[in-house]
Amino acid sequence: MLNHFPCSHAWSLKNDYDRLLNNFQLLDVMPLGSGALAGNPFNIDRLKLAENLHFSQITPNSMQAVSDRDFIADFLFWASMVGIHLSRLAEDFIIFSSKEFEFVTIDESFSTGSSLMPQKRNPDSLELIRGIGGGLFGQCCSFMMVLKSLPSTYNKDLQSDKEAMFTTFDKLTSILEVTTGTVKTLKVNSEKCRSALSYEMLATDVAYYLVRKGVPFRTAHHIAGRVVAEAEEKNVNICDLTLEELRSISSYFEVDVGRVWNYENSIEQYQATGGTAKSSVLTQINILKSWLKSQDGEEKACQPN
Amino acid sequence: MLNHFPCSHAWSLKNDYDRLLNNFQLLDVMPLGSGALAGNPFNIDRLKLAENLHFSQITPNSMQAVSDRDFIADFLFWASMVGIHLSRLAEDFIIFSSKEFEFVTIDESFSTGSSLMPQKRNPDSLELIRGIGGGLFGQCCSFMMVLKSLPSTYNKDLQSDKEAMFTTFDKLTSILEVTTGTVKTLKVNSEKCRSALSYEMLATDVAYYLVRKGVPFRTAHHIAGRVVAEAEEKNVNICDLTLEELRSISSYFEVDVGRVWNYENSIEQYQATGGTAKSSVLTQINILKSWLKSQDGEEKACQPN
Amino acid sequence: MLNHFPCSHAWSLKNDYDRLLNNFQLLDVMPLGSGALAGNPFNIDRLKLAENLHFSQITPNSMQAVSDRDFIADFLFWASMVGIHLSRLAEDFIIFSSKEFEFVTIDESFSTGSSLMPQKRNPDSLELIRGIGGGLFGQCCSFMMVLKSLPSTYNKDLQSDKEAMFTTFDKLTSILEVTTGTVKTLKVNSEKCRSALSYEMLATDVAYYLVRKGVPFRTAHHIAGRVVAEAEEKNVNICDLTLEELRSISSYFEVDVGRVWNYENSIEQYQATGGTAKSSVLTQINILKSWLKSQDGEEKACQPN
Amino acid sequence: MLNHFPCSHAWSLKNDYDRLLNNFQLLDVMPLGSGALAGNPFNIDRLKLAENLHFSQITPNSMQAVSDRDFIADFLFWASMVGIHLSRLAEDFIIFSSKEFEFVTIDESFSTGSSLMPQKRNPDSLELIRGIGGGLFGQCCSFMMVLKSLPSTYNKDLQSDKEAMFTTFDKLTSILEVTTGTVKTLKVNSEKCRSALSYEMLATDVAYYLVRKGVPFRTAHHIAGRVVAEAEEKNVNICDLTLEELRSISSYFEVDVGRVWNYENSIEQYQATGGTAKSSVLTQINILKSWLKSQDGEEKACQPN
Repeated sequence: MLNHFPCSHAWSLKNDYDRLLNNFQLLDVMPLGSGALAGNPFNIDRLKLAENLHFSQITPNSMQAVSDRDFIADFLFWASMVGIHLSRLAEDFIIFSSKEFEFVTIDESFSTGSSLMPQKRNPDSLELIRGIGGGLFGQCCSFMMVLKSLPSTYNKDLQSDKEAMFTTFDKLTSILEVTTGTVKTLKVNSEKCRSALSYEMLATDVAYYLVRKGVPFRTAHHIAGRVVAEAEEKNVNICDLTLEELRSISSYFEVDVGRVWNYENSIEQYQATGGTAKSSVLTQINILKSWLKSQDGEEKACQPN
Repeated sequence: MLNHFPCSHAWSLKNDYDRLLNNFQLLDVMPLGSGALAGNPFNIDRLKLAENLHFSQITPNSMQAVSDRDFIADFLFWASMVGIHLSRLAEDFIIFSSKEFEFVTIDESFSTGSSLMPQKRNPDSLELIRGIGGGLFGQCCSFMMVLKSLPSTYNKDLQSDKEAMFTTFDKLTSILEVTTGTVKTLKVNSEKCRSALSYEMLATDVAYYLVRKGVPFRTAHHIAGRVVAEAEEKNVNICDLTLEELRSISSYFEVDVGRVWNYENSIEQYQATGGTAKSSVLTQINILKSWLKSQDGEEKACQPN
Repeated sequence: MLNHFPCSHAWSLKNDYDRLLNNFQLLDVMPLGSGALAGNPFNIDRLKLAENLHFSQITPNSMQAVSDRDFIADFLFWASMVGIHLSRLAEDFIIFSSKEFEFVTIDESFSTGSSLMPQKRNPDSLELIRGIGGGLFGQCCSFMMVLKSLPSTYNKDLQSDKEAMFTTFDKLTSILEVTTGTVKTLKVNSEKCRSALSYEMLATDVAYYLVRKGVPFRTAHHIAGRVVAEAEEKNVNICDLTLEELRSISSYFEVDVGRVWNYENSIEQYQATGGTAKSSVLTQINILKSWLKSQDGEEKACQPN
Repeated sequence: MLNHFPCSHAWSLKNDYDRLLNNFQLLDVMPLGSGALAGNPFNIDRLKLAENLHFSQITPNSMQAVSDRDFIADFLFWASMVGIHLSRLAEDFIIFSSKEFEFVTIDESFSTGSSLMPQKRNPDSLELIRGIGGGLFGQCCSFMMVLKSLPSTYNKDLQSDKEAMFTTFDKLTSILEVTTGTVKTLKVNSEKCRSALSYEMLATDVAYYLVRKGVPFRTAHHIAGRVVAEAEEKNVNICDLTLEELRSISSYFEVDVGRVWNYENSIEQYQATGGTAKSSVLTQINILKSWLKSQDGEEKACQPN
């Protein structure tokens, strides 16, 4: 089912969300009360302070607290991973929108006319997502260079954390928006997708057919290869081979082999969780949708009252 | 208290441990049953399979499952952060072991004789930790390059995950061992540490003294600066200024200012959690020790029965 | 002309060769006679030594000589750039070898059969070139981390230069060999390439036609856009619009517009150096060929006698 | 001689200058006349155009010309190397300006007062150079990510070249200025440097003394080690051992060993080019000075007339 593909990207982005929650947990630690490096000399109650400022924990060591910027590095890497995911999504859609594939058409609002060819539209939005998404890791790299072999306690080198953090946040936010817009508005050319199917693709199904008849997969794979070769030699589609021709290759072929030559059946056979069967994909969509809804609620809960 | 410093590194490494547990959680997802990309066509019960293989979850989408190597990237970045922490620890000890500081002496078993100067010992172990620890991020960088704009589903590019993973694991393990050995065997030269103290360092305490008398910090900081200047001008230590001289700078100075010229008092004033006071540092050590003990137990619990 | 495309990659690789020569020049400096850091105390004639060892220059400062590993970093970055070029070449050919493009077919000796689909061949060689080529930069990154804020003179951290250098050399050499083999053996499907041409692509030529008639490019581009729209509306190819229809859009169209509807003419019009005209491409090939021949000679001259 | 140390950094920066010239050579290639990717269709004379625009060469292939951003990547890496050199210089001076070393004092105009300790000055300029210099490589990393596996001809991803280029140029320029200011105004504390010398350092010279008497270096190194041990045992400086005591260790010691206990002699023995002898260092300074002068002239010559 076609939705299996966009779902695969959705799950990666959901994982990113889960990862961010983990980062948040490590970030929810109040450094206030560490002074310049030695701590606070006025018997301040840091736990009370943390409670007032809605932190769950306090830093346990003043020197570590002023040295540590791991929560920045963690965020920069997290953002890099999201960037990588978006670059992969963009690459998929750039290839799928090429004239040779044409599985999808990028909307005019997210593509621009060619400066040279008046009729051509370039998938600029996707190319920018791919480039900027991939490049985000540079900010992470920059900050790791800064941290490397930096002596303990606060050093002025650390002030570059702000630039790396804000630049990354702004860029990531912008390509997330562009991704949302581009994906929301793109048109899927089902006809073109369908016409890209070819009976040769069902060679795998031939093997599976034989497995169901009790043939070990290795042998089944080999037989399916011979079926493909036979069809090529005869210059016909594999589905046009007669039962006799098939049985001359393997006696395991029976009249029910006809059921194999059907794309729907092929997709529907992957019934196990996470497979391409319609029920499986609908389950995915439902889980993702209700998760999204639950996030809306949680987001509101995050607001300070 | 001197132990405040090594504790600061201990907390960073403990955070690394906590981070690894988070990574583990995202890793505890079984991809088996995704086939080459479309799923499993033989109605296998993937949840049952996961249970048998001690996985808590299963991947929800076969395409995503074969494309995804985030758990490798996460591990590589995690290891890079540990490497960064070790490079900072090593830098501290390299500087502290230099002839000019001599706060610590690296044991013969973790240093080597100079090829040129027969009496000199080089802190080779620490330099290797610093270099190798810092360099670990290169493996993360390499794999991020591989992932960037890689189209969906399995591509042979991904096979480099093994090299990056194993190289990183081996290097990290080895420098962790060398760090343990070097730190365990190094000798702290308390006398040298103590002689590095100077009364000028107590200028901060002068400011705090005034704050306790009700002077706003900004003014107190300014007055303390004038105290330092006065001592410099008179070419004496600040503790040798007479009460009269101090009172000519600010009338807030009283006879109890004498309590300020004491390093113990200085350290003990940072009583707030995470500060340098003996009680605070002992608390840190106790928490770290019982955490370590509890980990021993947990590690055993991880073994499959 | 089709060869314009592979030539574009050839020029990038030739540039890499030229860059390597520049690196060599900065590398051709003998550090011997720098001792551990202070120089040589036995009045050795370093220039004579350099002559004997076939170095053109000697390092001018012993401290710099033992600190400096720029020649390693330069090589690592150089190799990363070659890796990037190969990753781009591989990406081009992976897309061109996809079923939807099929401009080229990867030879059996450089592709492997699908584990699942008996008839499918995967461009494994190209995917490995793309991944390993892209990943080379990680070695450069690793060594830059090592060098960052490293104090003067020799530090043991520097010994990682060997691993980075040799790993990079070995990997680069191997993917260069695989690239050579894959490109040498791939089959170009001229028929498929030709059938990917469409008359719409000649819209640019319509604009150029008008420019040659004296129309400013901006206006010409606009008119060509209207020609494309007109053809779309009439549901015909742009070359099937009658002269009258064209003249109803712009009176600059004359009977000679027929010459535009010809792919050969289109390619041949780019006569300026570096363009797609056959003469230009043949010139490129000749220059590259004689350069290659001259390198063969030079390489021999490099051998010590 | 003390100047040997700053000279070591000067040579690294001079090498950077030479490297930049090499980059320039590869940059001096005009892409104009490549169109969007196919070349120029109006028989323009690109060589004439290049002459007018002061380019030495023209790009040989239009597709390569619009794909290629190697000159940007080269610049970014070049700047990263300069940044690395500055981070190493900064690290040296940060350590040398610490209270324990105090070899140099950073001028007030390039340090800032501690927010906590009124008398303390922090080497902020150097810490910023170290951090920003080290972090420059992140821009190079970001752009390499963008380039990785990018298909041929122009892709919008490439527009990030401008940001990487300009950011890098601005940052590098600023830290070069701060380095110039910091180094120009810092005060060398010769007395402190001198007092860091210890006779133990002359153990190497003992070995060299013996080598000059005909003892193989390995043996000489071993004997020098025993001399150091003997002095430690007797709790005296090695220069206070009597000739008899020395001769009891090796009969190669003669009355002229007294010449060894002299720091000047020690430094002056490194007469070979690049060594610490005064003449060698003066030669370095003269070469660097006249090179700087010649660059002033050349810079003017670069201006278009």
